[in-house]
This record gives sequence, structure tokens and C-alpha cells, in this order.
Amino acid sequence: MTPALIAEARGRIAPLCQRTPVWSSRRFDEAAGVRTFFKCENFQKGGSFKIRGASNLVLSLSPAERERGVVAYSSGNHAQAVAIAARHVGAQCTIVMPADAPRSKLEATAGYGATVVTYDRFRESREEITTEFIRRTGAVLAHPFNDPRIVAGHGTAAAELIEECPDLDALTSPVSSGGLLAGCAIAAKGARPGIRIFGAEPEGANDTFLSLQAGKRLTVKPDTIADGLRSASPGELTFPILQRLVETVVLVTDDEMRATIAFLLTRMKILVEPSGVVAAAAALYRKLPVELKSVGVILSGGNLDLEELSWGRLSSLPPAF
Amino acid sequence: MTPALIAEARGRIAPLCQRTPVWSSRRFDEAAGVRTFFKCENFQKGGSFKIRGASNLVLSLSPAERERGVVAYSSGNHAQAVAIAARHVGAQCTIVMPADAPRSKLEATAGYGATVVTYDRFRESREEITTEFIRRTGAVLAHPFNDPRIVAGHGTAAAELIEECPDLDALTSPVSSGGLLAGCAIAAKGARPGIRIFGAEPEGANDTFLSLQAGKRLTVKPDTIADGLRSASPGELTFPILQRLVETVVLVTDDEMRATIAFLLTRMKILVEPSGVVAAAAALYRKLPVELKSVGVILSGGNLDLEELSWGRLSSLPPAF
Repeated sequence: MTPALIAEARGRIAPLCQRTPVWSSRRFDEAAGVRTFFKCENFQKGGSFKIRGASNLVLSLSPAERERGVVAYSSGNHAQAVAIAARHVGAQCTIVMPADAPRSKLEATAGYGATVVTYDRFRESREEITTEFIRRTGAVLAHPFNDPRIVAGHGTAAAELIEECPDLDALTSPVSSGGLLAGCAIAAKGARPGIRIFGAEPEGANDTFLSLQAGKRLTVKPDTIADGLRSASPGELTFPILQRLVETVVLVTDDEMRATIAFLLTRMKILVEPSGVVAAAAALYRKLPVELKSVGVILSGGNLDLEELSWGRLSSLPPAF
Repeated sequence: MTPALIAEARGRIAPLCQRTPVWSSRRFDEAAGVRTFFKCENFQKGGSFKIRGASNLVLSLSPAERERGVVAYSSGNHAQAVAIAARHVGAQCTIVMPADAPRSKLEATAGYGATVVTYDRFRESREEITTEFIRRTGAVLAHPFNDPRIVAGHGTAAAELIEECPDLDALTSPVSSGGLLAGCAIAAKGARPGIRIFGAEPEGANDTFLSLQAGKRLTVKPDTIADGLRSASPGELTFPILQRLVETVVLVTDDEMRATIAFLLTRMKILVEPSGVVAAAAALYRKLPVELKSVGVILSGGNLDLEELSWGRLSSLPPAF
């Protein structure tokens, strides 16, 4: 994994991905005590950064591989991203999703032209179903994070951000299995070797935090409102990259995420999902080193069912800012 | 009122106002059946277009007038806009607000350096209090709409939009007392004489709709969730402009506004307040002529207390789109 792979990915994904805007807010900066530059992946096609990795993978396929089609297992943003990319190149796409996934997600995925295969998540294993499907059809697996093409694609978000804000002291992004953070760390350190990299994780899904402390991949039982960050452990491919490039992972509570969503919504008028807001919450709650003058923050997505979030609770939080 | 006044205003307000982005959404266009270009005044300084008129007025004052200070009566976005503009030029600013206005608005206005004078809206008249204040201090009144400097300032929003999208068939904006729509109509017709202009009003505050039909200014008792559009009648200055330039006013229900807020929030990830969304709702619910190919829509503001909107009700609306 090198910055050159990310530079290649930028050219490859350009037809399918937005160059999302970088925004800032004087009021956020005052509250956070640091100049903050938001990379707004909530405005990305499909509503999250996931299209970056998915399109880099799908657009890297050989004609023979495209012919065989792609398959992914995901109940979230990755599934829709793979479906969008596959449709773009005219490849068959199959998504393995739990039968009890939100209807909106099942329908959206099918709406992008993918074949949705459902399974009973209490009795069946999505990995086994996918492996069997691949054995039978020869389809290419679009793994959500354990693939250099995915990591390089995700890294393009940071490459764009650093290009626009070349003087950042630090970069922080949400961490789940580490694909986004690993790609962004490689891109940022490649462009600006002195930049400091911080991961941001929910307290209730602190697998990467604990694993970096222990020096090995540990497993946790995630419990957080940030549904996209409920990983049990960092990825095989991504963990060594994080060990090498990430200074530390800071932890954020669910209430801090809720309050940060409310801040971005009411002050900046933008919607960010819980998983997408965790790095912004780390800045807003001053969990990054005090000496930082400027920080780049990846707002990684904005896909949210309005009923999912406890709006009443959100608005009743103490007005800390 | 001429397009030249608006061109002058553009130069004058540039130090204080954002050139807000123009956004579009393929999914909105599909649902609305027309290419729609949103002028995002919800991202404007202060959270609404009001800073355009307020800063044009305040920055037009002579040194002697600045010395006397400005006064405005408003419980909404206009008050904060005048306070921001006055602070910018170092003028004293007094805002007359109801004592029971939301604490957040009282505090925000004071936070911009204005002196807030409260009154009992059941027993006192804000006009009388303001008139007495002006008699005593010589302060300049910043009227919210009945002033050519305000109308010209608001028109800059449409001037920017037409500059960016010169081929629009039509323009639509929310109507309250008519300052925004009058200014935008003058700017748009000046740049593109063939453009069709449509106002959008809540069914529960249809004073301009009825007044245009009757050919004279009528008075209604407003009842709508769109708190910024609860005008009882069109303005003296603005009504003749609307009669001359506006083709018709289309009406939108409160539920259509709620559903449009949800659409813009979940699909485009942006927050627009009920008053700000009414023109977008007119497009989404296909109330504009079917032959239009492209329409410019002013999203006029995004200031919303999260508890004000019935989010539960919002998310339980039929998923029409």
C-alpha cells in the first residue's frame, strides 16, 4: 500500500465519485478550540465515502472478472456503493443481506440493480453463503475493507482534503475495521510526512483503541448507536498500517456523537450520521492534543433513517456550546 | 427599484455575505419532474437570506446615520441579520423582541452585540415601542421588508443564481411580505426577461395569493408551521412589484413542507426550515406548470430548533418518493 496506489485510484474513480466540498465553521472552531476543516463525505454519491473504495475495486476488474460479476455482504453503505459501481460498468452484482435489514436499505440496494440474497442472521453465516455463491458462480468478492483496492479508494478522500488544505497539523477519521483510516493515513503521510493521524472510535466499539494498546488485534462486543462502526476487531490488512501511521485512537461517547450531530445540523445545516460524526465529536469535545492549530476531519457519511435517531433525546442534551 | 440597484447591492454586501452554493439532486429532479437548481441560503451567514437585505441597508447608511444607530423589530432571522451588519460597521443596534421569544433567539441576538428591548406582545405594540425609541434616539429603522435597500439586498440571491444558471425557465421563492420575492423577481427579469416567476406560500398564510387574485392587498390570519411566513398581508412597497412580475403564487400544505424537509434532509443531507422549504415543496409536489424544463428554487433559510419540528410526524409521512 503506497501513496502512488491512491493517486492511481483518484484517476480511476473520478467518473463515479464526487469531489466533495471541504467546509469550515467559525462557531465550530470556537467551540473546539482548533481550526477544523471538514471533508464532507455525507454529500458523496450514495451518502458515504464507501463509493470511493467500491468504485476503485470494481473499476480495477479485468473484462473477464467483470463478466463473472461481483458479490458483497453488507447491510450498510458498502452494499449500495458496490451496487452503484457494478451498475456503472454493467457487471452483475449480488448483495448478501440479513432478511431483517431495514426495508429502506433492501429496497435501495435492489433499486441500484443488484440482486439481493437474504439470509437468517440468527441461523446462517453470511460468509458461508457468500463463499458458496462464489464457488458456484465465480463472482469476485468485494470485501468491505480487507482489500488494497478498497483501502486505496478510501484514501482518496484524504488526498483531496490535503490537496485543498496543505497545511493541516493533523487528520482524524472514524475507525471501524480501519479501511478508511488506513487509506487516509497513507495518503496524508505521503503528501505531508509530518502530519499527525488520529483515529476516532465510539467508546462502545473500541476494538482498534484496545488493539493498538495491546499491539495485537483484539475482539470486542460492540454496543454503540454508530451502526457503521460496530466492528468487533480491526482488519488483518488494515491493522499493521494503523500501527505504523496512527498516533492514537480517541474515544467518544454516544451522547457526544448525538450532541455533535445536533451541532452540525443546527449550526452548519448539514446531516451527518452517528458513524460519520465520531471524528468531529473528538474535535468538538477537545480530545485531540491541545497544541494542534488545524485539523482535517472526515465526515464519513450522512445516511440516517429519521426514526433511528432519538431526536427528542438529541435536542434535550445540555447545550454545551 | 431596478436591476441596477441590485447590482450595486452585490458589491456593497460582498464583505458580509456568502456567495452561497447552487446545488442540485438527481433524485429530487426525478421526483419533481423538472431540473431544479437550489440556491442554498440556509448556508448563508446567520442561517438565512436576511443578511443580504440587512447588510445592504446598514452598509448604505451615511456616517451620520451610523452614529445614530439602527433599530429593528423582529422575533426572527431579520433581527439577527441587522445585529450582525450593525456590529460589522460598529453601529449601535437595538432589537425590539417579544419577551416570550425563544431564549435561543434572544440570546443569539444579544450575542451579536445588539441591545435587546423586550415587550409584552399581548399588551404592547412593537411598532409603538420602536417609534418612541426612534423619536427619543434618532435611530434609523431597519424595516424588515418595506425599504428598497432591503428588497435590493434580497434580490442579490437571484442575481447570483441566474449568473450561475443563465438558462432557467422559471424562478420560485417563498413569499411572506414579499421582500425576497420582489427583489428576486427584479433581478431575474432584469437578467433574463423571459423567465417566469412564481411565489410559493403556505396554504395557511395565503395573503399574497389572495391579494394578487383580488388585485389589492388583503389581510388574513396566518396559521402555518412556517413561522417566517406568517405575514398577514403583502407589503406596501413589495405588492405592486409582485403584481407586475409574478405569474402566480402556488400554495403548499404544512405536511408537504414537512415531507420536503425530510426529503432534503435524508437525500441531500441539508437542513432547511419550514419557511425556507416552501418553494422546494411547490416543485416537489408538481404545483408549477408541467412544461417547465428547469427551475431555480430559493431555499431561504435553515434556522430551526430541533424540538420545534415534529420529527416523529415528519418521519411517519407516507414515503411518497
